This record gives sequence, structure tokens and C-alpha cells, in this order.
Amino acid sequence: MKSYFRTEIAGMEGYVPGEQPKLENLCKLNTNENAFPPSPAVKRAIAELDWERLRRYPDPLADALRDKIAEVFGLKRENVIAGNGSDDILTMLFRCFTSPELPMACLYPTYSLYPELAKMQGAAVIPVPLAPRTFELPGDLLKRVEKANLLIITRPNAPTGNSFPLETMRELCRNFDGVVLFDEAYADFADDNCMEFVKEFPNVIVSRTFSKSYALAGLRLGFAVGSPELIAGMFKVKDSYNLDRMTQALGLAAFSDRAYLKECSEKIRTIRKDFTERLENLGFQVVPSQTNFVFAAPPDRDGERCFRALRDRAIIVRYFRGPETGDYVRITIGTPKEMDRVITALREIYANPGAN
Amino acid sequence: MKSYFRTEIAGMEGYVPGEQPKLENLCKLNTNENAFPPSPAVKRAIAELDWERLRRYPDPLADALRDKIAEVFGLKRENVIAGNGSDDILTMLFRCFTSPELPMACLYPTYSLYPELAKMQGAAVIPVPLAPRTFELPGDLLKRVEKANLLIITRPNAPTGNSFPLETMRELCRNFDGVVLFDEAYADFADDNCMEFVKEFPNVIVSRTFSKSYALAGLRLGFAVGSPELIAGMFKVKDSYNLDRMTQALGLAAFSDRAYLKECSEKIRTIRKDFTERLENLGFQVVPSQTNFVFAAPPDRDGERCFRALRDRAIIVRYFRGPETGDYVRITIGTPKEMDRVITALREIYANPGAN
Repeated sequence: MKSYFRTEIAGMEGYVPGEQPKLENLCKLNTNENAFPPSPAVKRAIAELDWERLRRYPDPLADALRDKIAEVFGLKRENVIAGNGSDDILTMLFRCFTSPELPMACLYPTYSLYPELAKMQGAAVIPVPLAPRTFELPGDLLKRVEKANLLIITRPNAPTGNSFPLETMRELCRNFDGVVLFDEAYADFADDNCMEFVKEFPNVIVSRTFSKSYALAGLRLGFAVGSPELIAGMFKVKDSYNLDRMTQALGLAAFSDRAYLKECSEKIRTIRKDFTERLENLGFQVVPSQTNFVFAAPPDRDGERCFRALRDRAIIVRYFRGPETGDYVRITIGTPKEMDRVITALREIYANPGAN
Repeated sequence: MKSYFRTEIAGMEGYVPGEQPKLENLCKLNTNENAFPPSPAVKRAIAELDWERLRRYPDPLADALRDKIAEVFGLKRENVIAGNGSDDILTMLFRCFTSPELPMACLYPTYSLYPELAKMQGAAVIPVPLAPRTFELPGDLLKRVEKANLLIITRPNAPTGNSFPLETMRELCRNFDGVVLFDEAYADFADDNCMEFVKEFPNVIVSRTFSKSYALAGLRLGFAVGSPELIAGMFKVKDSYNLDRMTQALGLAAFSDRAYLKECSEKIRTIRKDFTERLENLGFQVVPSQTNFVFAAPPDRDGERCFRALRDRAIIVRYFRGPETGDYVRITIGTPKEMDRVITALREIYANPGAN
């Protein structure tokens, strides 16, 4: 049969879902889910769900949720759009701001979904290579990306975990002639963020997710904030009813529990600090993390060997093949008990060169 | 500020969400939600939700749900893709099969979202005008759409409510050189459907929704079935985790309760038959409906007057301005009590020409 697909789609590899292995006694540290459960407010919100109301369409604008988000960040409802996960937000952004005539720029390495979304739009990708080992930004960043219409700064970055100076970000917003998206999936684990830039610059969008710091990866909820003009344009390409009734109710409950968010994120930062020190004591190079994971190179800088040896011990972490990334593994910050287990395994693997 | 939007998006009007009026004692018959609650299996599924598991990503492939759908229709998992409402399915289809080089064809009048989705892709729309009053297909349908890469047959059609002969559909699938989408949002209320064509033709996709017959508009769930090649291509553009954990669990519970679906749809067909007769007795022209709504022209064929007069009585129906559609109102089939109220109101409006 002849292919009826657009050539851009026919030429794509196709989606490969993340590994969900079924192992006994599994320690799952590969997708940066939260080590702790969601806020207990979520449990209460489930108990209060009116199942019969599910026959009615949800609020297409998610106003209650957007109002609460706006309130917390000192913005207005018109500054906020919510999505079915931040993947939905990204899809909207690519459909708004990229095309064969409108290229996209992003870091390298970074979240590997961006180039896939660009391909679907037929848009060129301008990569911004980060420095080896430190994963810092190049000095000539602005010049490199001047042809882009959409510039994505993942801050803190994934899979590297590090952040970039706030003052450099401000300069970028001021001087870049296009839309700057700060993908702040991990910002709740970081020392600072770019949320204030939304009030300063009309070309800035900041996106957040409920999948990490809110411990709600299973809920599919993300949001973006920006100038009313940018947000109104994004609404044009949004699926009409993109957020179901349950997601809106549970998301609002979780978001409103600011104390739990703070407490939970603080615990993860503490575990991260401790785990980083223990890795360094084992001879790992650990990129300074502002997220709920660490990007760490083992003493022999063989990321793949480390990944496999951990996997043999039912500890699943992430390995990214490639000239820069291949030296590292990415390990989600789990509970203290899970981190103990990782350290014990790594001691076994690296203390005795014959092991594995 | 200069616009950074793609010209296709900048030129769009922007989404206007459906009316959600806040009136006392409201009779809401404008968005074709089910008159009855969802299956009680949905209530049980909510009670069984493990809220702590929400910290984990959902199954990106929704395999349990897809397996059940495949089983019921005598297909395989590879024939099925699930979406965040059938809007999500439509968005995937437009991104796969339409572009400035690949036009889309659809009926007129029909679901008004299709031309909007085409605009976003920069794709031309080839309209297939239905006959006045009967809303039947033109005899030269195939010739009209020969330049299209995607042909959407909404069957039963909305907002007209009527269906088209199955044998004509088969001819179309056999002879159209492109993808045929049967949007079967209302098929559970109809005498027949096109599901079997999926086994016969590699270029056919059938989509269904949980928003109407399953009484789960608030859940956001839809699915499409087609050849493994077409479905695999659609997976490439799907957001990775497009269905949250709750939607997958509740959707599976509702879908599995086939007896409830049948019983509930049968009740609505009975109410529809009775309501149609009563409308005809009041001098309305009612298009033969195969859905959970009727498209009916009042005696004076002034749809807008009817819409407004009902609205004054807190009965909300749908009116579509336009040369063909403007003669009609679209009324969702509600409970017998709601239908009584509509009939009483219409008697008041039309029995006494001075009323309104």
C-alpha cells in the first residue's frame, strides 16, 4: 500500500516508550519520578470526586486551576495555560512557533523530545552544544541561535542536571528576537528560576510540570505562563477539552498545598547533597545538580557498563549513548533507602574491578 | 511587539469555548452529553484508585485498554490507538495526513473543528455539500474529493444527526485514494457502523469517543482503529503519555460494561423516537436521527428564534448560523422529564404566535 503520511512523519523512527521493566525487587530510578507520594490533598480530592458528573464536559479553560497558578506567581489568568502534561504544552508551542521557515534552537544534550517535535513540523533544529564535562553554555550562544524563532532553554537542564546563570538568561531574553521557552520541569528543586522574566519580557514563556516536584507523573498536568498575547495564541491550537475533570480537581488540590511541595522538594535536595558526596567519594564525577536526579560519570567514564551492572542488580537508571553523554549515567534521587542500595551496588561494582 | 506565530496560527480567530451558562433550573441540551450517568463500574474503579501510584508515569501505550477494545471488535492491539478525547485522535490524524500539499475533505455541514485543524496544518479544505433538508450525500462525492489525502465522513453526521448508506461507504473506501476517517462519535446510537471496514480496507480509520454513549465527556477518552501501518504512524505523533492513570482505569471499566452501554443507548433511542414524533406533531421538520440528538426545524424555519425562545425558558440547545443550518436547532436527547419540558416550552412558543 502507498503511504498516505506526510513525508516528515513517514521519515520518522517512531516513538519508543521508556523502559518499564518487570523485575523482582525493582529499584526504579530511570524516569525522575518523585521519591515520595503526592500531597495528601490529592487523596482527599479523589474522595470528593462526583463520578456522575463525569458525564459532563470539563471546563475547557481550566479556570479554577489557572486562577490559582496565577495567584501564586503574582500573575493573571490570561498569563496561564494548562496542558495534558508539559508534553501537551510543548506540542502547542511547536505548532505555534516552528515550521519549515521557522527553526527551533535547543541545547545539546537536552530533552530529546524537542528535535522530534521539530521534525513533525518540518522545522530545522539549531543545536547549542554545551561544554564537555561542565555542560555550561557557550559564550557565543546568542549569535548561534539568531536564526531561530523558538529557543528552548531547559533550566535546570536534563539529563545533565545543572543550571545556568540568571543574569545570562536575562540578557538572552532581552536580545533574542524570537520566543524564549524556559522549560522548568525541575525548577522546584533548584535555587532560582525564571518565572519573574514573564513580567519583564513579552517574548518569554516558562513551563512547569506536575510530574516531578508534585509527584503526579500519572496525572498528566503541566502549565505555561507568558504574556497574554503568547498565551492567547497557544489557546488557538489547544485541544478544546484537553484536561479532564479529575486532573483539574486533583491538580488544583496538589498545587494549593504549597507547604507539602516545599517540604518534599527540600527533602529531595538533602538526599541529593548526601548522595552526590557519596558518589564523589567513590570517584564519580557528578555534574552539580539542581534537579531530582544526578548525572554522574563512573571512575572509568564508561556509562554503559555502569548502567548494565546496576541493571543486573535490579537498579534501573538511564544511559544516553553518545560522545558526551556516554560517559555518564542519570540516576533519579529516590528515598534514602534506595540511595543506600545504589551506593552499595556501586561499591561492589567499582571497589572490586573483577566484579560485574 | 512583532508576532512570532506561524502565519496560519496568527490568522486564526481563536478558540471560543462552548456555552456553559449558569442559569437557575437549567436544562442543558447543547453539547450532546449523555442523559444518564456512566456505568456504575466507573464508581467502583474510582474507589479502587491507588492515589500514591499517581507519582508514577502511566502506561504510554494504554495496552490494557487497547487489548480490551481490540477483543470486543475482533481486532488486535496493533489496530488500536487511544487518545485524550477524540479531539486528540483528530489532532494526530491531521498532523499525519494533512499539509499545504495534502488537502482534507469533509462534509458540509459537519463538525466545525475539522476546518480549524486543517488551517493549523496550512491544508486546504474540500467541502462536500449535503443536500438541503435531507442532508444526504451528493451523487458525485468521489469525484469531488479526489484531490484530498484525508476524507472525513462523520457517520452519523453532526449536527444533522442522519447517517449514510453502508454500501455507499464501502464503495468509497474501495475507490478513494487516500485515508478515509469515519468519525463514529455517535455510532452506538445508530443502526449500523463501519467498524468492519477496518478489516477489509488498509486505508480506513474509525474513531469513537467515550463522551457520548459511555457518558464520560468529563474523562476525555477516545480511540481509533485501523490497519497496523496507519496506527503505527499515528503513534509517532502522539504525546508520549497522553492518557493519565485514572482515565485508563476508568475507561477500561466503562468499556468493559457492554451490557450497560447497550441498555443506556437503547433507552436513548426510545426517548429519541418518542421526542421526534412529538416534535413532528408540533409541525417541526426532524432530520431522521441516528444519534443522541435531533436536528429539527421549527414550523417557521427560524432556528435562531427557537433557540432564543428556549433559552428564555432556561433550556439551552444549539443553533448554527448559516444558509442551511440556520433553519434548525440541535437538541440533545435528555431524560424523559427534560424532553417533556422542551415539548411544553415549544407548545408555548409555537401554539401561540404571540408568545416568545
